Parts: sequence; structure tokens; C-alpha cells
Amino acid sequence: MKVGILGAGQLGRMLALAGYPLGLEFLFFDPSAECCAEPVGELIRADYDDQAALADFCERIDVASFEFENVPQSAAEFVAARRALRPGFAVLGTAQDRLNEKNLFESLGIPVPGFAAVDSRSALDQALSLLGFPAVLKTRRMGYDGKGQAVLRSPDDVETAWSRLGGQPLILERFVAFERELSCLTVRGSDGTIAHYPVVENVHRSGILHTASPRADDPLQGLAEDYSRRIVEHFDYVGVLAFEFFAVGAQLLANEIAPRVHNSGHWSIEAAVCSQFENHLRAVCGLPLGSTALRQHSLMLNCIGTEPAPEQILAINGAHLHRYGKTPKPLRKLAHITLCADDAATLDGLRLRVEPLLPG
Amino acid sequence: MKVGILGAGQLGRMLALAGYPLGLEFLFFDPSAECCAEPVGELIRADYDDQAALADFCERIDVASFEFENVPQSAAEFVAARRALRPGFAVLGTAQDRLNEKNLFESLGIPVPGFAAVDSRSALDQALSLLGFPAVLKTRRMGYDGKGQAVLRSPDDVETAWSRLGGQPLILERFVAFERELSCLTVRGSDGTIAHYPVVENVHRSGILHTASPRADDPLQGLAEDYSRRIVEHFDYVGVLAFEFFAVGAQLLANEIAPRVHNSGHWSIEAAVCSQFENHLRAVCGLPLGSTALRQHSLMLNCIGTEPAPEQILAINGAHLHRYGKTPKPLRKLAHITLCADDAATLDGLRLRVEPLLPG
Repeated sequence: MKVGILGAGQLGRMLALAGYPLGLEFLFFDPSAECCAEPVGELIRADYDDQAALADFCERIDVASFEFENVPQSAAEFVAARRALRPGFAVLGTAQDRLNEKNLFESLGIPVPGFAAVDSRSALDQALSLLGFPAVLKTRRMGYDGKGQAVLRSPDDVETAWSRLGGQPLILERFVAFERELSCLTVRGSDGTIAHYPVVENVHRSGILHTASPRADDPLQGLAEDYSRRIVEHFDYVGVLAFEFFAVGAQLLANEIAPRVHNSGHWSIEAAVCSQFENHLRAVCGLPLGSTALRQHSLMLNCIGTEPAPEQILAINGAHLHRYGKTPKPLRKLAHITLCADDAATLDGLRLRVEPLLPG
Repeated sequence: MKVGILGAGQLGRMLALAGYPLGLEFLFFDPSAECCAEPVGELIRADYDDQAALADFCERIDVASFEFENVPQSAAEFVAARRALRPGFAVLGTAQDRLNEKNLFESLGIPVPGFAAVDSRSALDQALSLLGFPAVLKTRRMGYDGKGQAVLRSPDDVETAWSRLGGQPLILERFVAFERELSCLTVRGSDGTIAHYPVVENVHRSGILHTASPRADDPLQGLAEDYSRRIVEHFDYVGVLAFEFFAVGAQLLANEIAPRVHNSGHWSIEAAVCSQFENHLRAVCGLPLGSTALRQHSLMLNCIGTEPAPEQILAINGAHLHRYGKTPKPLRKLAHITLCADDAATLDGLRLRVEPLLPG
């Protein structure tokens, strides 16, 4: 069975590495000059509006998925008309627009921080008078890794933020003084079976994920599963979905969804019985889901912009290196390191050894 | 760093899958029409005596290794003259010839079953009078998976065996009434560091490996490590070496070595901290070795000739499927399944569920 993946970055690369043992083959579609999934599959390098290339892509595959939620809707629809696209293109329309996303969360009874659409300077002032300071102004579309965002702490910040972000559809969100950022990775099979990984505690730096650590028996596990289930059932979703939350006391406030495998689930390669990558493919290919159970205590660290010396990381027992084969560039995710240990204290010790080796 | 691998079968495929996370790239060299490593790396499809193709191979890689010990000596020497070939070609000369192998074992003080070279019918009679019945007549070269062997239980068997195998260099070995077949997987780094995996208990059917199970704290672990160390130090070996033994009481009798990753180590993908494939590449690339420690109780089953239905295997929690993407053919290794469990009883239960699903 050949799986077509829209996007050929590190998520596609790790999907393929997880998929070959299942007997799958891979065809990627990506317009980028540098595609780090290229060595592990076939690649069609073409723009997302190149219908001849998309038709060729569909011809050569059995089933399609994506590793990138900003695939243009038109390309996703083109593919979905010809091959099963899992998850479907409907979720893309929601996940690509923060306003649609927030409206969906509300309609499904999932708590969200206060928000308002902002399409003009006067609408921004109105939204600020409603939500108050501090607040976060975000582009509705194409925001990721902290891009397209400005925190408004006082009226002094408004003019600068507006001059940077104004002129495109925006959303203002109440700033949440969260205690923790959690994500929940959920996989839903083609038969409707649902499995959740243990919730992950995430730490961001400058808007980019820095560390992710799965939490066994987190008190908010049940709530995160409940909200995630509402999303995947709403979309008749097939595959892995990541749902990011702000945790405030016993409450979870929905932040955003990513309809794909997710950086906060990379630890699952070593530390879950079946990784998010394998489970996504199992779902997409109509195979039974694998166990999402934790095997060990685990923490993942991202390598952003520069990579540590591999020999230093590999010398540490319990550290697992995953390089993406990308050209270094500031703010680019180049690799991740997963630490595994039998207990929390050993994991903390590993972290203390590894963190000083990460540049920056 | 680009690693060149002579041979592009399932071992090469699993090497590449383990190597991408280390940031490695792969170029395979194989004359076969069907190469199951082809989807996961570049491939030069050419005969081993094609010096232009071998030169091209060397040009395009940083370091070379092999996944197949019957690489012609001339090809190995050609490559070794141009790029670091790890392990070196000297071990090939030994591993390709059962008589050389047995002589080396003896010279290193490693016990072997009685043996004698057989180059003529009269030499066979002489060897039989020395070693007695039962004995095993084997080709000195190109034997694997039970091919090129005949068991001589009585004088009645001699004529048939001779007519089948005579006319090429042979070796007669005393038949060992072993209690267990064990293998020891050893990895030696480019700095001389040595690590051993837990010894593996192997069961063969019709000469082909059927199951392999690592044994924590086996009483013969120390002896297996001692003998393996003698071999890798003798060759200044770099990479993974498999050493197969017959266990008789507290004694180990050397059977054969394979200078490469080995079927009896496939369980290490899930059940060791660092798999044999990753450790071989770490050694070959001059990186620090990873831990060979067991993570769980484990058993590997080979799928020979036919494959089970993937959805049946994947429905079993604790079963990990590894398909090689090969065209089914009698006696061909098509896939393996690794079972993992926290205790021996659960592992036995898993085995009872999986074995009936394997055809044949």
C-alpha cells in the first residue's frame, strides 16, 4: 500500500520511518526546494496549485494524508475527490483559521479563553475594551511556532502590534495566566476506535516548543480526553490529532488543534508502545490501532536553529537523537532528543546532563 | 555522512531505518533485481565484479559496511582500498569459509565440535572413522539458512550426501546433541569499546531461524562474551558481530560467526535501549556505542515463505510487525514479529496468540 503525504518535512520523514516496518511505501508532495523526507520516499516537487502534479500524485497512491495543516484547501479538496484523504479536508478549514477553531470549540462546549474577531483598527479597540489587557493579537491564518502573534500588555503596545499585523484577518484572545500548557494526542481509527496518549506537558520558548513530557496519571487526563473526543467525533476524524490546552487549576482552556502528528508527541517513538507516527499510519491505512501506553518516563527536547554535537548526545545512556537532515537556519527545528528513564529522578538527572549540550 | 552498504536486503533496510535519526544517508550496492532496501536509500544495482560501479560507490560514500557476508573478497578489497570498510575484509575471508572459521576458533582457544576438512570421498571416509556417526557434512562456502548441509546418521546416509554435496570443498563436523542454540551479539566501537547484548536463545526449523529470545542473566552470558571478545579483538573489529554457539551443559561450542547485524538480534529494535542496527552504524561511523540493556522480555518470530495478515498481528498489544517488502517465495524471510512484555508469563501468553496466526 502506498501512502501519499502532502508535505515532506520532518513529520513526513518520521511517518515514513515508522511506516516501512508495516510494509507501506511513501510518496510525498511538497513545493519546497529542501525536503527532509526526500531520502525516505518518492517525492513530487510541485506547487499545491499544480493540478497535473496533484493528479499524478493521486494516481500513484492508495490513500492520502498530510503532515502540514496549511495545505491549501483547494489542493486538499482535489486529492480528497480522487483518493481517501485522512483526516478529511473539513478539519483543515477549521484548523487553518483560529476564529473557526474557537467557534467550533465553543459550539462543542469546550471552554476557550475570551476572544473576538478583529478586522479593523476600530474592531481591535472594541475587542480590547471587551477583553481588557493583557491580550494576544494573532493572525487568523498561517500562524505557527509563535509567528503572527503580539502580546498587548497595555495600551502602549497596541499601535506597534497593529502596524505589524493589521491588514489581514485577526483574532484577539484574552491572555491566559496558565499554570501549564498541555497537549493531548488522540488517534481515531477508520472504524471509530479512539485511543489517547498520556497528556503532555509542554514548555515553549519564544513561541516555539522547547520541551514536551508525557505525564502518567495527570489529573486533567480525563478532561483532555473528553474534549479531544468531541473534536475527532465531530469530524469523523481518522488519524492522529493534537489538541493544545492551557491548564488553569482544574480547568482546561482550548488553545488550538493540529490535525496531524505533532511535535509534542515525538517522545512516543521510544516511550510509548506504539508511536504517534505508527498509529497515524495504522489509522490512515485502516489497520487496528496500537497501544498508546507509556513504557518509561520521558522528556523530549527540541534542537532549534543549531544542533548539538551528535557524539556528545549519543554518549549519554538514555538519550535518543533524532536528526532531520535539514540545513541549519535560525528558529528552524533541526532535531529532537528524547530522554527515557525508569523513574522521574533519573529523568531529571539526564535532563541536567543534556540541556547544557544544546546550543542557545 | 553517507554510509555505503554492500547488500540491499532486509538487514540493509533496517540499518537505514535506524540510521536516518542519526542524520546518516545511505547508498546500497546489490546485483539483485529485487532489493528491499531500495525504497529507503540510493541504490547501485551492479555485479560485485563491476569495478566501475564499485568505484562510483566508493566515490559517493564516506564509510562502507556490508549486510551480507558472502560479498566476494575481491569486491570487499576494492572498497577497502578506497574507503574505510567496517568491519574489515579480513573477517569476510574467515566467515565465508567454515574451515577457516573453525581453525580460527581453535587458535583462539574457543571450543569447537570435532571437525575435519573433506576434499574427496576417501577423506570423507577417513573423517567419519575419526569423528563417528552422527555427523554433519557441510559445504565450506556459501552455506546459510541450512543450505549446503547433510546430516549423516549412519553409513547408509553417506552415498546420498556425497552425491549431493561432493565435488566442492567440504567440512565434516561432529553432530552436537546440544541443549540450546545461543547467539551472542557483540558491538565494538572504532575506539575499541565493546558491548554485548544479552545472549539470545534461538530455535531453528529446517535450518532456518524460527524464534529468537534474549535471556537476561543467562548462566552462559559471561562465557559467550569472553569468546566473542576474542574474535572482535583478533580482527580489530568495528561493528556488530553475531557468534552462534551450541550450549551443552556449562559449555559453549562455537558454531559460526556472522560479521554483521543478525536475524537473532532483531528483537533489539523494541526490546533493547539501542538496537543492533543503530549500534552497528554508531560503530561504523565512529560514534559512541549505545546501551545494549534489555528493556523488556522479548521474543522474535520469523515469517518464512508467507506472511500473516497484518491486521491480525497489529491487533495484538505487544506485537510489533516488521515487514521487509519482499515478494513471497518458499523459504524466504519476509517479515518478523517481535513480542514484548513486562514478564515471562505475559510473553508466553502473547506467543500463544501469535503463533497460530503464522502460516505454515
